[in-house]
Amino acid sequence: MTILSRRAALAAAAGLAAALPTQGSGQGSAQGTPQAPQAWSPPDPAQRCPGPWGAADRRGAMNRQTPETVKRAAGLIRTGEIVELGRVLEQGMPLQATRQFHIHTKPLFMNPQPNRRGSNEEMVIGEMGQVGTQFDMFPHQTIGNHTYNCVEIDRIATRNGFAEMGVETVGNIFTRGVLLDIAALKGVPMLEAGYEITPDDVDQALRRQSVQLAEADAVLFHTGWGTLWGRDNARYMASNPGIGVAAAEQVIRRGPILMGADVGTVEVSPSRTLPSASLPIHQIALVVNGVHLLENLKLDELAGKGRAEFVLNLQPLKLKGGTGSTVAPTAIL
Amino acid sequence: MTILSRRAALAAAAGLAAALPTQGSGQGSAQGTPQAPQAWSPPDPAQRCPGPWGAADRRGAMNRQTPETVKRAAGLIRTGEIVELGRVLEQGMPLQATRQFHIHTKPLFMNPQPNRRGSNEEMVIGEMGQVGTQFDMFPHQTIGNHTYNCVEIDRIATRNGFAEMGVETVGNIFTRGVLLDIAALKGVPMLEAGYEITPDDVDQALRRQSVQLAEADAVLFHTGWGTLWGRDNARYMASNPGIGVAAAEQVIRRGPILMGADVGTVEVSPSRTLPSASLPIHQIALVVNGVHLLENLKLDELAGKGRAEFVLNLQPLKLKGGTGSTVAPTAIL
Amino acid sequence: MTILSRRAALAAAAGLAAALPTQGSGQGSAQGTPQAPQAWSPPDPAQRCPGPWGAADRRGAMNRQTPETVKRAAGLIRTGEIVELGRVLEQGMPLQATRQFHIHTKPLFMNPQPNRRGSNEEMVIGEMGQVGTQFDMFPHQTIGNHTYNCVEIDRIATRNGFAEMGVETVGNIFTRGVLLDIAALKGVPMLEAGYEITPDDVDQALRRQSVQLAEADAVLFHTGWGTLWGRDNARYMASNPGIGVAAAEQVIRRGPILMGADVGTVEVSPSRTLPSASLPIHQIALVVNGVHLLENLKLDELAGKGRAEFVLNLQPLKLKGGTGSTVAPTAIL
Amino acid sequence: MTILSRRAALAAAAGLAAALPTQGSGQGSAQGTPQAPQAWSPPDPAQRCPGPWGAADRRGAMNRQTPETVKRAAGLIRTGEIVELGRVLEQGMPLQATRQFHIHTKPLFMNPQPNRRGSNEEMVIGEMGQVGTQFDMFPHQTIGNHTYNCVEIDRIATRNGFAEMGVETVGNIFTRGVLLDIAALKGVPMLEAGYEITPDDVDQALRRQSVQLAEADAVLFHTGWGTLWGRDNARYMASNPGIGVAAAEQVIRRGPILMGADVGTVEVSPSRTLPSASLPIHQIALVVNGVHLLENLKLDELAGKGRAEFVLNLQPLKLKGGTGSTVAPTAIL
Repeated sequence: MTILSRRAALAAAAGLAAALPTQGSGQGSAQGTPQAPQAWSPPDPAQRCPGPWGAADRRGAMNRQTPETVKRAAGLIRTGEIVELGRVLEQGMPLQATRQFHIHTKPLFMNPQPNRRGSNEEMVIGEMGQVGTQFDMFPHQTIGNHTYNCVEIDRIATRNGFAEMGVETVGNIFTRGVLLDIAALKGVPMLEAGYEITPDDVDQALRRQSVQLAEADAVLFHTGWGTLWGRDNARYMASNPGIGVAAAEQVIRRGPILMGADVGTVEVSPSRTLPSASLPIHQIALVVNGVHLLENLKLDELAGKGRAEFVLNLQPLKLKGGTGSTVAPTAIL
Repeated sequence: MTILSRRAALAAAAGLAAALPTQGSGQGSAQGTPQAPQAWSPPDPAQRCPGPWGAADRRGAMNRQTPETVKRAAGLIRTGEIVELGRVLEQGMPLQATRQFHIHTKPLFMNPQPNRRGSNEEMVIGEMGQVGTQFDMFPHQTIGNHTYNCVEIDRIATRNGFAEMGVETVGNIFTRGVLLDIAALKGVPMLEAGYEITPDDVDQALRRQSVQLAEADAVLFHTGWGTLWGRDNARYMASNPGIGVAAAEQVIRRGPILMGADVGTVEVSPSRTLPSASLPIHQIALVVNGVHLLENLKLDELAGKGRAEFVLNLQPLKLKGGTGSTVAPTAIL
Repeated sequence: MTILSRRAALAAAAGLAAALPTQGSGQGSAQGTPQAPQAWSPPDPAQRCPGPWGAADRRGAMNRQTPETVKRAAGLIRTGEIVELGRVLEQGMPLQATRQFHIHTKPLFMNPQPNRRGSNEEMVIGEMGQVGTQFDMFPHQTIGNHTYNCVEIDRIATRNGFAEMGVETVGNIFTRGVLLDIAALKGVPMLEAGYEITPDDVDQALRRQSVQLAEADAVLFHTGWGTLWGRDNARYMASNPGIGVAAAEQVIRRGPILMGADVGTVEVSPSRTLPSASLPIHQIALVVNGVHLLENLKLDELAGKGRAEFVLNLQPLKLKGGTGSTVAPTAIL
Repeated sequence: MTILSRRAALAAAAGLAAALPTQGSGQGSAQGTPQAPQAWSPPDPAQRCPGPWGAADRRGAMNRQTPETVKRAAGLIRTGEIVELGRVLEQGMPLQATRQFHIHTKPLFMNPQPNRRGSNEEMVIGEMGQVGTQFDMFPHQTIGNHTYNCVEIDRIATRNGFAEMGVETVGNIFTRGVLLDIAALKGVPMLEAGYEITPDDVDQALRRQSVQLAEADAVLFHTGWGTLWGRDNARYMASNPGIGVAAAEQVIRRGPILMGADVGTVEVSPSRTLPSASLPIHQIALVVNGVHLLENLKLDELAGKGRAEFVLNLQPLKLKGGTGSTVAPTAIL
């Protein structure tokens, strides 16, 4: 059942389509066969701005979540089982090279009163918007000096967060989640490094799982790459399978709130078809279309459940001006 | 409708009752009238251990959340409206004296590729388990050298988190929430500093709101004190109204998962009835009964809705070995 | 005895003089009498660059320290007494509003071997280049986008330090120190807030103390303001006495390595004569002339010794790319 | 010229000798030949306490630095050349596994006034007492629960530093330095991993360099291991040559202020002769004798100068309650 609203349909016909680069649309179904390297460049400001919700919009795809979509999502809860999709935050987890995560337990503080109440807490140090299972908000990424809706990043940057579109403005994402199990589609436990998920893969996975994408979905891709987490961190970080530009465009046309995967980038990295572009889907999703990304998901358990749709429940931290948030999302079945 | 399970009933009759100090039970209904200062001391290990789920238990009250309770909670969603209960994490928010919170935006990193992808992130420094709206896990508190279930804190402490009962083990709390609006009951916008919520207050509020407590509830207290947050931080931190020992005991007998409030401690601080005890309800809830606390909630908007029951949705960060987590809980109506 | 070298004399006649703004030179000796507010603007790039050591220079005034000056300074050591000029770094010390300093002792780590070796260390968090007694390196300050010698700050900035002129390049300053006791000159224990030290004050202090300035000196000003440190931090930080533009120019013409004081800025703050300029001497010293600043000195003990000249010994931390360093300088008598 | 004071001589005859374990005295001169593994255990409290300066002493070997020794050291300055002995603090330097060092440049802050004063600073995060070239103060190490002079570490530990013997109490070390070039003695650029410097090595080096040890010396050992710094950090940290227990005892009998080396531990690690003891010289120096250690020195340039004695100049940061300090020491020739 496709439930694209009229607004989204118009957006797909107008703003979004204009925003999507035509260069990427020729690639596709020849999964497994080599694809010729292509060039890609982000759309011009005139093509991508204003976005579908107008020039003043700062919420992007979260405009798609309404009390109605929340209520409808709640209707998907059948057993009440909760499956965790978040990684444990610990020293020794895979980290992007410029980031860190440290937790220092402070010595027990014993209060002087006779009830001998001891108190513990911990100092945490790290890029808490961008470590572990992480949710990306728009200022995380730019095209040149522009973030989402052609907002100039220089104008909103302060020493202590961004003055607009900080992650504290997102709110609880409680929406229909769809898990596209591409690893299962391909009959492998883990897609290979650099494997680019194509539009055909998406279509086949939807058919195989008897599900369709709808507006306000959280679309998750199971690649199996997450099994390397904590086992071979260097390999986990060096490269990964993920969606390509064409698949990202295809999914974004359906009006999702977010796209996520069990890899560090959601998108294939490095890309064989677009070797000279740096993580183009980060620009397409966050900067051009205002669609969030959700990275480093733990998807093995959920994939094993065989449920294609569920509630995707996610509460970003309210880090004022933050570019993202480490999160502990769940699937409620 | 009380839905105390047989297990909880037995616990109330046996373990919990034994665990609850009798000294506190004499105080109570004379709200507004002065109460004589009393002494209180935590129950002995023999009285409080093992807890109702046995000596090996490390989950405490989260044992009460089951797929069944989750499914039942989902049934409370009527409109799909989501109300935020979490405070924005920002420099300048109220902080306990020994804690800090800092967010430092890192300068834009411009990738060298032609698609001009800029990347932002932020360094965050602070006691991320115990700042802002915060959820307490058991090792946060002790009675002498014991945390929940008489686990010796020295044995499980490491430099980088606790080896057992870290906050990463809690999982998504998705359960029935009940907001007891004590400020409304008293006809004031804000209870006064040091006002101690009594068992009678709880009973009257339940009657006034036509609601009953049930097992696995998240029981929230609206005191109005939260209106000081960000306006008069010094006053917000210096003291606050909150539940007293007798009210805490009464609520805990109903088998909640957590107790929360729009103050920094949940409990009255300082306490006039127990002036010589340091935050006794922290010990009663976390150490004796394995019941979580949820502090610094933003409850004004929810209170204004007039809904007594709802879904309380809360995802603690998966800080390995952490004593708690800053959180962004919501009420789903 | 003036020991201005030929090089310095040339510099004074050419580069430095050109670099010094003429607007400031009208103020001066009328200590205690109100001075009319004036305007000041930094010299143009053509006036200030290249500096006296050429366009490629990155060392500035430290070019003045040579083995010869070090050896000559060592000759000033008479008694071997060492007087500490550095403040203790501790939580609760005065801090500029955008900075922090935290020290967290880590719990004792006991090694497993039979010799029972326990190990302690501490996590330190703070702007370690700019807290406590602090030494300023050139990239700490700019005129627009230029730091010392018209180097564009954007070009040398990285996320993790400055690619040129980091404080690690300075080295051990071991040179003749001169303490000008302006408080004693005025017969007060502490100059008043906003008192501007004038060229006449400098001249009178030199005469009173029977000392002259020479090239490569570290010129320190005792204002008495430091007695507020740790006693009234808010007052200490809100404003302070210090040198004015005219006195700074006068001292800089003598070719010092650094200027320091027992206040947070070295210079008067706020300035009555230049109310619309933000810390102009920071620009004059660091950006225009490559002269270092040394702030928050503890000078009471040294002032009590009555020694006008001594060895000023200072070892900046080797923070790669750092804008400065917290330091523990000493006077060796 | 040996200038052991009477006090030191008494100490050597009484306290120190008593404090030194007899187990270690059998090893020695058979350099290059395999030595049988031995056992070692720290001396009992009755043997090691009180130290030579009495039970109330908290300064240890710094009691040996007096105005007289400072003045005498200054007399060693001949050319005025300053040689840097401190490592640059940078990300990517060798670090002990449980430590970190990060420097984050904060974005330029442009002040609003017309003089366009921009300001830079950096957030620094790390165990600043124990990274880079580092100076150890007594609470860094324990024998069981005791640090220097049998002070109970539990009693003086706070969450934010040690209440006694913090590194802020040490002061500027300005004393005679002696560089024993053991690598040159052995005719190698670098001693091998695990090579244990023996008393005979010390004696031969002293004869070869025509120098003697004296009270209050800073005794530095050049092993050549420092050439691995920044080139092969893993190898640099995995093991290193250094002094053995017997050599340490021998040097300590001469009454030094500190012992240092171009390795991470000063002492051989791991030790073939004492394989079951964890860094025993850390206990012997810091806990038993109150002698400081100075680690990760950069000694190649100084060794190349061929000067056996010089001024060792070192200013520990004034970190209140700190266990040590990253430092930037120099040799003044």
